[in-house]
Amino acid sequence: MVDQPSSKPIATNPIPDLNTVAFAVEGPAYSSESETHVAYRPQSLYLVGTDGVIAAVLTPDDPQYHAIRAELARLNRLTSLADGQVLLPGFSDLHLHAPQWAQAGAALDEPLERWLGRYTFPTEARFADLAYADRAHRHLVQATLARGTTSVLYYDTIDRAAAVNLAHVCTELGQRGFIGKVVMDDPESNPEYYREDTATALAETERFINEVREFAPDSGLDAAPPIVQPVITPRFIPSCTDAALEGLGELALRYHCFTQSHCSESDWEHHTVFDRYGRSDTEALDMFGLLTDRTVMHHCVYLSESDADLFARRGAAVAHCPLSNAYFANAVAPVRRYRRQGVTVGLGTDISGGYDPSVHAMVRLAAIVSRNLESGVDASREAAERGGVADALVTLDRAFYLATVGGTEALGVRAGRLEAGYAWDVQLIDVHAPGNDLPIFENDEDPAITFQKIMNLSTPANIRAVWVQGRLAHGTLA
Amino acid sequence: MVDQPSSKPIATNPIPDLNTVAFAVEGPAYSSESETHVAYRPQSLYLVGTDGVIAAVLTPDDPQYHAIRAELARLNRLTSLADGQVLLPGFSDLHLHAPQWAQAGAALDEPLERWLGRYTFPTEARFADLAYADRAHRHLVQATLARGTTSVLYYDTIDRAAAVNLAHVCTELGQRGFIGKVVMDDPESNPEYYREDTATALAETERFINEVREFAPDSGLDAAPPIVQPVITPRFIPSCTDAALEGLGELALRYHCFTQSHCSESDWEHHTVFDRYGRSDTEALDMFGLLTDRTVMHHCVYLSESDADLFARRGAAVAHCPLSNAYFANAVAPVRRYRRQGVTVGLGTDISGGYDPSVHAMVRLAAIVSRNLESGVDASREAAERGGVADALVTLDRAFYLATVGGTEALGVRAGRLEAGYAWDVQLIDVHAPGNDLPIFENDEDPAITFQKIMNLSTPANIRAVWVQGRLAHGTLA
Ligand SMILES: [Zn+2]
Ligand SMILES: [Zn+2]
Repeated sequence: MVDQPSSKPIATNPIPDLNTVAFAVEGPAYSSESETHVAYRPQSLYLVGTDGVIAAVLTPDDPQYHAIRAELARLNRLTSLADGQVLLPGFSDLHLHAPQWAQAGAALDEPLERWLGRYTFPTEARFADLAYADRAHRHLVQATLARGTTSVLYYDTIDRAAAVNLAHVCTELGQRGFIGKVVMDDPESNPEYYREDTATALAETERFINEVREFAPDSGLDAAPPIVQPVITPRFIPSCTDAALEGLGELALRYHCFTQSHCSESDWEHHTVFDRYGRSDTEALDMFGLLTDRTVMHHCVYLSESDADLFARRGAAVAHCPLSNAYFANAVAPVRRYRRQGVTVGLGTDISGGYDPSVHAMVRLAAIVSRNLESGVDASREAAERGGVADALVTLDRAFYLATVGGTEALGVRAGRLEAGYAWDVQLIDVHAPGNDLPIFENDEDPAITFQKIMNLSTPANIRAVWVQGRLAHGTLA
Repeated sequence: MVDQPSSKPIATNPIPDLNTVAFAVEGPAYSSESETHVAYRPQSLYLVGTDGVIAAVLTPDDPQYHAIRAELARLNRLTSLADGQVLLPGFSDLHLHAPQWAQAGAALDEPLERWLGRYTFPTEARFADLAYADRAHRHLVQATLARGTTSVLYYDTIDRAAAVNLAHVCTELGQRGFIGKVVMDDPESNPEYYREDTATALAETERFINEVREFAPDSGLDAAPPIVQPVITPRFIPSCTDAALEGLGELALRYHCFTQSHCSESDWEHHTVFDRYGRSDTEALDMFGLLTDRTVMHHCVYLSESDADLFARRGAAVAHCPLSNAYFANAVAPVRRYRRQGVTVGLGTDISGGYDPSVHAMVRLAAIVSRNLESGVDASREAAERGGVADALVTLDRAFYLATVGGTEALGVRAGRLEAGYAWDVQLIDVHAPGNDLPIFENDEDPAITFQKIMNLSTPANIRAVWVQGRLAHGTLA
């Protein structure tokens, strides 16, 4: 639920020197005030600095509002939203296999082994063709930007050059890209045509880290890490040798890099790792130094209480992938419990274990599958015997928090809220877009209701513009 | 999965007199060949009669193909699809509360009683304002047509004039509308401001039937029932008196009308009816004469084997509403079991217990929730103890069958397949739409893969045109 207007006092910031203000946007906005509460802020003036960070937020009752507004208009730096337009923070997608975009939506009724062997590995191997990779990467980055996704944690392929291409595409198109060159070196579990030996995999990962850092140096800004970062990416434990996992843990420590992998995704994966090490996937990843405060682990459906405690202690985050979990995980991830245990959680599309490139869709699905988790599913049993889990509901406001605050916290980006000091990673929603005019029939509709309609009914047609770090990366303001 | 090309011989029809051919469309298409198999038919020529029914389907190997094609082009009656365009049958939505479109997406985190009392009943009651009702009805019918929905089974409100307005709007905009004026007469369970007494409810229902039939007389065509039909619509047993239910059963018999209601939607409803009659919801509806071969019952989550057998014996159909069931049903409807028992099943959006007006979305969700049903949901239990149900999966091909063949069979419309003798209720998909260019990077992609991408990734932007009974009801062919 949403207040109208926000009951929280607007942070008052010193008005910045207007010379350092790149542009300003005037309009209403929604932003998470807490995990359970999305706040509506009526028309306000957002001053965005030349560094892409929100310098100040002014409300019309501020004595300087009208003078500053007039001066920015005179300087041609003011955009005033039209009727029906509203700002939301951009969304973060914490899990996306970039090369699998070429097969998104396909083959999901196949069993996992066939899905991997007949479809996924050949699809990924094709990205050794860099012209093909460049074309697919551009298509994907544009498609996700057009859906309001401002930060993405990507897997690419085992091919370093392909992964570097993705970093270049993100840089050029202006999306925050956390990019992994995939490691899968175990000859027992990977096809010969799509595998590196251990030494090569580690050397290529190190070279990848250095290449990406070279062209994307740290900005030095708190709110503005490099627009692209290299991520250490063992595919998952079952596809890697111990030597590779050890080596990657050392690289993570030496380079202070983000790490990612799949963790306790399915019954099969969970038990395979337990059989190999006599400990859980979480404990095994930790043993290799791969569970840090710069870690995002994907799926995490089967974390025990003690596993989740370890995530919380290490400051590692969980990517909740409600769509692909339905297809491949054999259960629903208990994200409310993880939040109660203090774990950072965001959302992931998991293209193409999930098919939908929209984090808006993941917000909806996180809510939907949480309903199934809370109630259980088998109608032939009495409610109490149905296998549901209490206190599991992910409300719309909670799901929005995961998509905005949760995702950016997982990635160490100060964004995801429309407040001073946060990066201007923003999506501009038009509820009356020609391609999808939302059913709003009252001029004075409660903004809380409008928010719910936006979250549940919008399509890409409603996303009129998207900025990342103050740069317009999709759409127009015309 | 899909064959390429269809392994089924194309039905060969006598070529009709071209004077009776209103237009022809040339292009590739997908259509269900069986419940488990969607067939791809490469470029063919569909001749559509002046009655809106497919008169013949010609393939290029037909000796007359090129001569007929040339003659139709000369007569300016030929549309040839562009690259990336493909035909699908239109979809049927078997459950939609038209007035709730005004609140679609809102308030779903409220408990049911508050959802009904604070939101839904006031929203419906507003439709007594006919200008408001007309505006909302038009917006809804356009929105659903734009999503490829060619037939809809609607609830309107208790207000006869509002329901008649919806029938007029469907007629004007060219959507098959099966329309119910709602009956809810029990003073114990309905608010005073939104209720009719029993006599009025029955008299208004009868008047509604006659008014709609007057302006939409039967066409006499097998494949072409009237574009709008009145439907007898007790809201659900808990909101009606026995006298109303008896009276409606009599009207159904006398007028040979379609009937609809909610049946065994939730634990609460299922048990409420059992407590009232000492029998199941299904048996109670049957007792009142409301379970016939012209019946569609919504949700049906809790049907016992014997309930489902009764549905099959009566020829009554089930509207599977995967989205609203997640919110309100406390379990997943076991539609695979119902199909095994011989029950006709289609899909319903259930606006606004569900928020999404797209049957494309219901196809996806039917698959997703079936995964949860098959596996169970609670990861803390071993797989065998998780409460899943075997043989519950709804594959994409099965879900497509429900949206096309199942829905039209439930409504007694000969449509939903692209074959001679079926009405031309069709959606034209453009995989390269500017608003949503699907990730297809190979010119020779397997049509089965393209089909899955269309079903899982398309947005309204990809639906370029929609015909109902041969009339262009959405989009353009330019
Ligand atoms: Zn993955
Ligand atoms: Zn309903």
